[in-house]
Amino acid sequence: MDPMEKTKVALIGLGTVGAGVARLLLDHGDRTARHAGRVLWLEKAVVRDLKKARGCQLPEGVLTDRLEDVIDDPEIKVVCQLIGGIEPARSIMLRLLEAGKDVVTANKALMAEHGPELCDAARELGRSIAFEASVAGGVPIIANLSTCLSANQVESLAGILNGTSNFILTKMHADGVPYSEVVAEAQRLGYAEADPAMDVDGSDAAQKLAILAHLAFGARVDWKDIPRSGIDTLDLADVRYAREMGYTIKLLAVAELDRSEALELHVTPTLLRDGSPLAEVSGPYNAIRVVGDAVGPLFFHGQGAGQMPTASAVVADLVDTCVGRTAITFRSLELWSNRPARVSSADYADAEGRFYLRAMVDDHPGVLAKITAALGASEISIASVLQHEPKEKGAPVSLVIMTHTTTEGAAGRACAAIAALDCVRGEVVRLWVRD
Amino acid sequence: MDPMEKTKVALIGLGTVGAGVARLLLDHGDRTARHAGRVLWLEKAVVRDLKKARGCQLPEGVLTDRLEDVIDDPEIKVVCQLIGGIEPARSIMLRLLEAGKDVVTANKALMAEHGPELCDAARELGRSIAFEASVAGGVPIIANLSTCLSANQVESLAGILNGTSNFILTKMHADGVPYSEVVAEAQRLGYAEADPAMDVDGSDAAQKLAILAHLAFGARVDWKDIPRSGIDTLDLADVRYAREMGYTIKLLAVAELDRSEALELHVTPTLLRDGSPLAEVSGPYNAIRVVGDAVGPLFFHGQGAGQMPTASAVVADLVDTCVGRTAITFRSLELWSNRPARVSSADYADAEGRFYLRAMVDDHPGVLAKITAALGASEISIASVLQHEPKEKGAPVSLVIMTHTTTEGAAGRACAAIAALDCVRGEVVRLWVRD
Ligand SMILES: NC(=O)c1ccc[n+]([C@@H]2O[C@H](COP(=O)([O-])OP(=O)(O)OC[C@H]3O[C@@H](n4cnc5c(N)ncnc54)[C@H](OP(=O)(O)O)[C@@H]3O)[C@@H](O)[C@H]2O)c1
Ligand SMILES: NC(=O)c1ccc[n+]([C@@H]2O[C@H](COP(=O)([O-])OP(=O)(O)OC[C@H]3O[C@@H](n4cnc5c(N)ncnc54)[C@H](OP(=O)(O)O)[C@@H]3O)[C@@H](O)[C@H]2O)c1
Repeated sequence: MDPMEKTKVALIGLGTVGAGVARLLLDHGDRTARHAGRVLWLEKAVVRDLKKARGCQLPEGVLTDRLEDVIDDPEIKVVCQLIGGIEPARSIMLRLLEAGKDVVTANKALMAEHGPELCDAARELGRSIAFEASVAGGVPIIANLSTCLSANQVESLAGILNGTSNFILTKMHADGVPYSEVVAEAQRLGYAEADPAMDVDGSDAAQKLAILAHLAFGARVDWKDIPRSGIDTLDLADVRYAREMGYTIKLLAVAELDRSEALELHVTPTLLRDGSPLAEVSGPYNAIRVVGDAVGPLFFHGQGAGQMPTASAVVADLVDTCVGRTAITFRSLELWSNRPARVSSADYADAEGRFYLRAMVDDHPGVLAKITAALGASEISIASVLQHEPKEKGAPVSLVIMTHTTTEGAAGRACAAIAALDCVRGEVVRLWVRD
Repeated sequence: MDPMEKTKVALIGLGTVGAGVARLLLDHGDRTARHAGRVLWLEKAVVRDLKKARGCQLPEGVLTDRLEDVIDDPEIKVVCQLIGGIEPARSIMLRLLEAGKDVVTANKALMAEHGPELCDAARELGRSIAFEASVAGGVPIIANLSTCLSANQVESLAGILNGTSNFILTKMHADGVPYSEVVAEAQRLGYAEADPAMDVDGSDAAQKLAILAHLAFGARVDWKDIPRSGIDTLDLADVRYAREMGYTIKLLAVAELDRSEALELHVTPTLLRDGSPLAEVSGPYNAIRVVGDAVGPLFFHGQGAGQMPTASAVVADLVDTCVGRTAITFRSLELWSNRPARVSSADYADAEGRFYLRAMVDDHPGVLAKITAALGASEISIASVLQHEPKEKGAPVSLVIMTHTTTEGAAGRACAAIAALDCVRGEVVRLWVRD
């Protein structure tokens, strides 16, 4: 390699991730040079507010609040777009592509929402977009799905994709503290944002799942169409019953081919059997289990967010883009092209699985018989039942039922029927179970 | 993509792995075409014996026993070299490179032994070598180390890299059956070869570790210089004591930077705390835990051998090679080049860790004091001790000691001193411990 050869790169956004990327480029340029066969030269970093303190030392002249300093410099070939949200991120990305730059981004919301538009633009302009950091932070799941599994039909993918939710769930299990208390602590510790709604209601995981499902199955889904529920409504009682039965509850994102090869997608709190790899993923970690028909099950685990893990993924993309690997992958995969989707979407009501059901019931004889009958009417058979003595005589008790395999639709109908019984108080809690 | 564009490929060797690759190319050409943007056309498959039954249906004219059919066909651009052992695999590989072909291989022995010579030849000839399948079968650890971790200084790597050993160990733990019995069963089931020596004595894992250490640390080590011991001398008693103390024994391959940034390498049966990800890897699975200074710990788990998982890795390499990604990676990484190694080798005696020690001792008062003194003389402190009542009065008993952190050298010296004590019968068993 010519030691003097260099590729000029720029950052848009110098927040948590941007500052981490700047540190890797400036403090550890030898690594990127070794992998890229050239120096990745940080030419500009664009921010809104020039006065803000930055978590990195930039050489004179690098920091700017003028996007034009990047757009108008033809020598800047690759740009990391590291601002969050949809606008102005989307418009900036389009301007960068139009100006002839390849783009690396960590913005999952943008890719999930505008992947087709952005990838079409990049293709037309002969440019590429890389987005490893947008899903699972430091876990290189995008690269693995895009290149390492090329000989496989992926059959299923199940992942813990939201670190905030997993951190909160881990605390709820370990300390027996309800959601509302843990979320406050997670905010204090910086594991949850001031407004954690997208993280805890399943939206963030659904955005990431939409991206992974596109790569793994050729699906084209709007993340808003993915059936989802979050941990924000999870009752500590269900965490306790799950534990008692040998399960851990995780916010699981699932994409799976059904018997008719249609793709079933959902994001929900799910009971996982203790000891299974996904059940053991704790704190802010992310993990993904992918099953390919040739390779069998593969499991990936690592830090799903945080400054340096995310920056690690961004810089790997930057190297791949500078050396030309990304251009090849982007072109051959035809990401979000106008080719028809390779799979059809399954009807969520047909999705097969086991369920955890909990109802508050009167402590009378015959109640279990009525509930069993309601389940039987939906052809659901019972795998196990858990009911403790009432705290005081006559008080309603929690009845927990684990079903055998049934469908989402049947389970939903049965729950409605159970909730309508005289002996049942309130709604029936229903959670997915995976072994 | 032009649907008619095709790249002609060939296989040398059509055994377990070769037949799997042929099946993926012939039965699932749509997948490779989708990822490569062109058809990968299986033009020739070279074997020794044309009459042998093959685990795949080949079109007329593909099977041949003439290597020249591949060498002399300039339209065959990429060749999978899937014969085992060193010769003639090495000479064939050189001839293929000289004939202008890029090569994909699953042969770890060849890469570990002749990586420098082969990579030098490929570089000089402007060709590439891809070898994902040579380590950990279906687990894409080579790609992840080569590209996804480019922003990191890898700090440590620990892996279960030999499926045969892991299968045997899992059985020894689960069924309490000694090594000799399990190895016979593993042979019957096809998990161990007729001559499993390289698998069970740590040689196979050391070859794979040498390859991974080259990629992760820029080390240039001869696998034969890696300190190693296998599971073939592992006593069932130690499996039982380990379990009693909450540990599982695995054949672990470790590459780790020490305090002075020198690289410490070894392959040994190691006690891993139950519940840690590597301890839970069972049966023929492989797993690798890599710690990068930016990304933190990453964990990869999957099938380490077997026809289709290995073929999956070969075909991924084939696609990467056909589209040009491999050429870029091979060139920029400068694999096994004559550049000096990036790390120096640590002295194994200086390697730090905790140890499990077991001695047969006389059941007399004062024995523990003598052994403690011997450990103290090597400045080793004791973390825990396990000693059961003797089966019959006066019979020698097993004394098990877990040390605090010390060095390999100190532990070795202490064991020699302990073995020399009057009250100790025979050698002292010594195993590494990792939490
Ligand atoms: N943080 C993580 O762990 C993580 C993990 C994976 C993915 N991501 C994704 O990475 C992206 C960045 O996240 P972050 O945590 O680094 O966000 P952040 O800390 O809020 O930083 C955002 C940066 O963008 C800059 N910015 C915003 N609007 C701008 C504009 N119009 N022009 C120029 N600069 C502008 C801000 O400038 P000022 O500093 O001047 O305000 C700030 O430096 C998001 O899409 C996020 O979802 C983050
Ligand atoms: N099996 C696994 O799970 C696995 C996993 C990872 C890596 N690997 C590696 O993959 C390689 C192949 O393994 P395998 O299990 O497929 O071996 P295998 O079943 O023994 O097959 C070897 C093949 O090579 C052919 N061959 C041998 N010498 C030849 C020569 N001089 N000219 C032409 N063909 C020749 C044989 O031809 P005939 O059939 O006519 O005898 C046979 O088809 C080895 O390096 C192994 O270490 C294997």
